[in-house]
Amino acid sequence: MMTAEKMGSTHRPRPRATDYLIASKRCELRNLECFLQMGKLVLSIGNLIHHLQRERGASNVYLGSKGERFFDELGAMVSNSNQQQQTFEYELLEIQAELTSHPASISLLNSIAAALHGLDILPVLRADIRRQSVSAEIAIESYNERIRHLLAVVFEAAETVVDPAIAGMLVAMVNLMQGKEMAGQERASGSLGFSRGHFDSALSRRIAHLIDAQERSFAVFERFADEELLMLWQHHTNAEYWRDLQHLRGLACSVGRYKPLDTNLSGQWFELTTQRIDELKRIEDTLEDHFHRRCIARYTEARSALTHEEDLMDALDDAGPDQDPMRALCTGDYPGDKPDAYRSDGVGQKLGRSVFELVQQQAVRLEQLSGELRLAREALEDRRTLEKAVLLLMKRQRISDDEAHKQLRKLAMDQGRKLPEVARSVLEMTALLR
Amino acid sequence: MMTAEKMGSTHRPRPRATDYLIASKRCELRNLECFLQMGKLVLSIGNLIHHLQRERGASNVYLGSKGERFFDELGAMVSNSNQQQQTFEYELLEIQAELTSHPASISLLNSIAAALHGLDILPVLRADIRRQSVSAEIAIESYNERIRHLLAVVFEAAETVVDPAIAGMLVAMVNLMQGKEMAGQERASGSLGFSRGHFDSALSRRIAHLIDAQERSFAVFERFADEELLMLWQHHTNAEYWRDLQHLRGLACSVGRYKPLDTNLSGQWFELTTQRIDELKRIEDTLEDHFHRRCIARYTEARSALTHEEDLMDALDDAGPDQDPMRALCTGDYPGDKPDAYRSDGVGQKLGRSVFELVQQQAVRLEQLSGELRLAREALEDRRTLEKAVLLLMKRQRISDDEAHKQLRKLAMDQGRKLPEVARSVLEMTALLR
Repeated sequence: MMTAEKMGSTHRPRPRATDYLIASKRCELRNLECFLQMGKLVLSIGNLIHHLQRERGASNVYLGSKGERFFDELGAMVSNSNQQQQTFEYELLEIQAELTSHPASISLLNSIAAALHGLDILPVLRADIRRQSVSAEIAIESYNERIRHLLAVVFEAAETVVDPAIAGMLVAMVNLMQGKEMAGQERASGSLGFSRGHFDSALSRRIAHLIDAQERSFAVFERFADEELLMLWQHHTNAEYWRDLQHLRGLACSVGRYKPLDTNLSGQWFELTTQRIDELKRIEDTLEDHFHRRCIARYTEARSALTHEEDLMDALDDAGPDQDPMRALCTGDYPGDKPDAYRSDGVGQKLGRSVFELVQQQAVRLEQLSGELRLAREALEDRRTLEKAVLLLMKRQRISDDEAHKQLRKLAMDQGRKLPEVARSVLEMTALLR
Repeated sequence: MMTAEKMGSTHRPRPRATDYLIASKRCELRNLECFLQMGKLVLSIGNLIHHLQRERGASNVYLGSKGERFFDELGAMVSNSNQQQQTFEYELLEIQAELTSHPASISLLNSIAAALHGLDILPVLRADIRRQSVSAEIAIESYNERIRHLLAVVFEAAETVVDPAIAGMLVAMVNLMQGKEMAGQERASGSLGFSRGHFDSALSRRIAHLIDAQERSFAVFERFADEELLMLWQHHTNAEYWRDLQHLRGLACSVGRYKPLDTNLSGQWFELTTQRIDELKRIEDTLEDHFHRRCIARYTEARSALTHEEDLMDALDDAGPDQDPMRALCTGDYPGDKPDAYRSDGVGQKLGRSVFELVQQQAVRLEQLSGELRLAREALEDRRTLEKAVLLLMKRQRISDDEAHKQLRKLAMDQGRKLPEVARSVLEMTALLR
C-alpha cells in the first residue's frame, strides 16, 4: 500500500488540472468557431425564408384571383427562391462535416433533417399552384410548414450557444425572424382575402391573431436588440406607409363575408406589406452583420486568451519534469485555495499562483456567463413552452392555433399572469392528468 | 437562372435529410456511450469522496482530542483515500481523450481541472494535521472544499445528459451524494465537539443547519429514485441506531459551551454516524448499479434503432442513384407531411413514407424527451440557484453559509414561497441592484 509521501513522487501517468483547463478553453473556442460558420447558415436561411415568404404571398394573389394576377411575377419569385435554396444547401454542405462529426445538439441535427425534407416537396407544390389544382388555404399551410422547419433550425442553433453575448443576439434574431414570418403570413392571408374580394370570419380572426403574434415576438426582439438596431426599429415603427396599412388591416379584420371589396386592393395590400417585410429583412441583415462582427471579436479574444494560457502552461512544464507537482502547486501553506497562501519564495510560487488563478478565473467567468446566458435561454424556453401549449390545446380540443392562442391569452388575462407562465401551467396540468 | 424543373435533375452535391437524421441518432448514441464510461468515473468519485469524508471525520477526532485518539486509524484511512484517488485518476485517464476531443461541456472540463487541482493539496494538509499545526476548523473547511469540487464534477456531468431516463437517475445520484456529504460534515463537526467535550453555539448551529440541508437533498433524491431504492431508503430511515443518534444530535445542538460532555461520546458519535454514512454509501452503490444497467439498456436500444434506420437508408440508396430524389420522397400529392399523402403505387411510396416517418418519429421523440428532461434539469437548476444565492449572501454580508441558508429559509417562510424561487428572486434583485 502506498503512503501519501510516496504518492507524490511516483511516475505513473496522472491526469493534470492544466490539461482540463486548456481543454475547457478549447471547447469554448470551438463553440465560437462553429458560430462563425453557423452565422452564414443563418443568413442563408433568412434569405431563403424571405423569398419563400414572398412566393407564398404572390401564390395567394394568383390563386385568389383564379390565375388572373401575378402569373409572371410568381415565375420570377420561384427562380429567386431556388437560388436562395442553392445557397442554403451550399452553406450547409460547408459545415456538414463539422456539424455531424462534432455534433452540438441532437435536436439541431434533426431540425436540419426536417427542413431539408420539407424543401424537397416544394417543386410539386409549385406545379400544383401553377395548375390551380390546390386550394389557397392548403398552399399557405404548406409554405408555412416549410418556413416553420427552417426557423426551427435557427432556434435549435441558438440553443447551442454557450457565449451569452452571442446567445442574446441569436435570441433577438430568432424573435425578429419569427415576427417577420407572422408578418409574412399576414401578407399571404390578406392577399387571399383582398384578391377574392371578401374575408370570411375565420380569415379575419386569423389576421387579428397574426398581428398580435407579431407584437409579442417583436417585444422580445426589442429586449435583446442593441442600440443601433433599436434605432432602426424605431424608424420602422414610424414609417409613413403605416397609415395606409392600418386602414387595410382594419378592412381585413372587420369587413365580413358579405360586403364585397375592390379586388384591386390586393395589389396595394401586397405592395404595402411587402414594403414593410422588406424593411424587416434589412433590420434582420443588420442584426446578422452585428452578430458576425460580435462572433469575430469574441473568437479573437478567446483565441488570444488561450494562447496566453498555453504559454503559461508551457512555462510550468519547462520548470522541469522532475519537479514534484505538489511543490509547484503549493509550496507550503495548504489552504491553497487562496492565491496569497503561496509562499513568495521563487518560481514555484509564481507558477503555482498562475495555475490556481487560471482555474479560479475560468470558474468565476463561467459562473457569470451562466447567469447572463440564463436570461437568453429563458426567452428561448418561453417560446418553446408557448408553442408546445398551443399544439397541445389544438390537438386536445381540435381547434385552430389562433383559437388556442386566444384561450391562453384569456387565461393569462383572467389570472393576471404572464403568457409563458400560463403555458407552463397548462403543460404541467396535462402531464398530471395524463 | 435555373427554373424549378431544372433544379430536380442537376447533379451538384446536395445535403440530404437522411444524413442529418442518421447524424442526430449517432449523436444520441455517442452521448449514451459517454455515460457508460462516465458512470465509472462517477463511481470512483463516490468512493473517493466516501474515504475523504471518513478521513475528515477521523482528523477531527484526532485534532479535537489533541492527538490522543485515532492516530493509527487516521494512517489507515489516508492510505485508503490514496488508493481511491488512484482509481479516480485512472478512470479519468481512461476517458480523457473522449472528454477533451469531443467535449460535452466547458463547465464539466473546468470542474475536473478544479477537482484535480484541489486534490494536489491533500498531502500538505495531511502533514499539517499530523503535526497538529492546523486548526480543526480550517482542516474541516479544506476537506469540504476538495469534496465540493469532486461533487461539482458529478453535477456538471449530470447537466450534459440528454436522455431523460438517465438524467433523472443522475439527479437522484447528485442529491444523494450531496445529502451524504452533509451527513459527513455533520459527523466531522460533531466529532470535533464531542472530542473537545463541548459545543460552542456556532458549532451547534452548524450541526442544526447540516441536518436541515440533508433533509432537503434527500427529499429530491426520493423524488427521482426508483422503487427498489425507495425501499432501501425506507429501511435506512427506520434503522435501529437512529434513537441513539438522535439523542447525541440533541446534545450537540443544545448543550452549549459551558456544560462539559464526556469526551468518550466522541467514539460513539463517530461509530453511529459512520454506520449511517456507510449505509448511505450502500444506497449510492445500488443507485450506481441501476444507473449502469439503465445506460446499457438505453445504449443497446439506441444502437439497434440506429442499425435499423441505417438499413432503411441503404435501401433508399439502393433504389438507384439516378432516381430523382423528389420522386422517391413524394410521388405525387404534395402536402407530403402526412404519410397517407403518398400514393400507394410502389417502391417510391414505401421509401418516401419511411424517410418521412423517421424524421417525424425522431422529432416527436425528442419533443417528449425534452419535456421529461426538463423536470430533471429543473431539479439541478434549483440546486445551482440555491448555491449561488447562498454564496452571494455570504459575500455581501460576510456571513457563514448556515446564516445565509437561514436567511433564505426565513424569506421563503415569510413569503410562503419555495426555497428555489426565493433564491432566484435574490439573484434577480442583485442583478438589478448591481
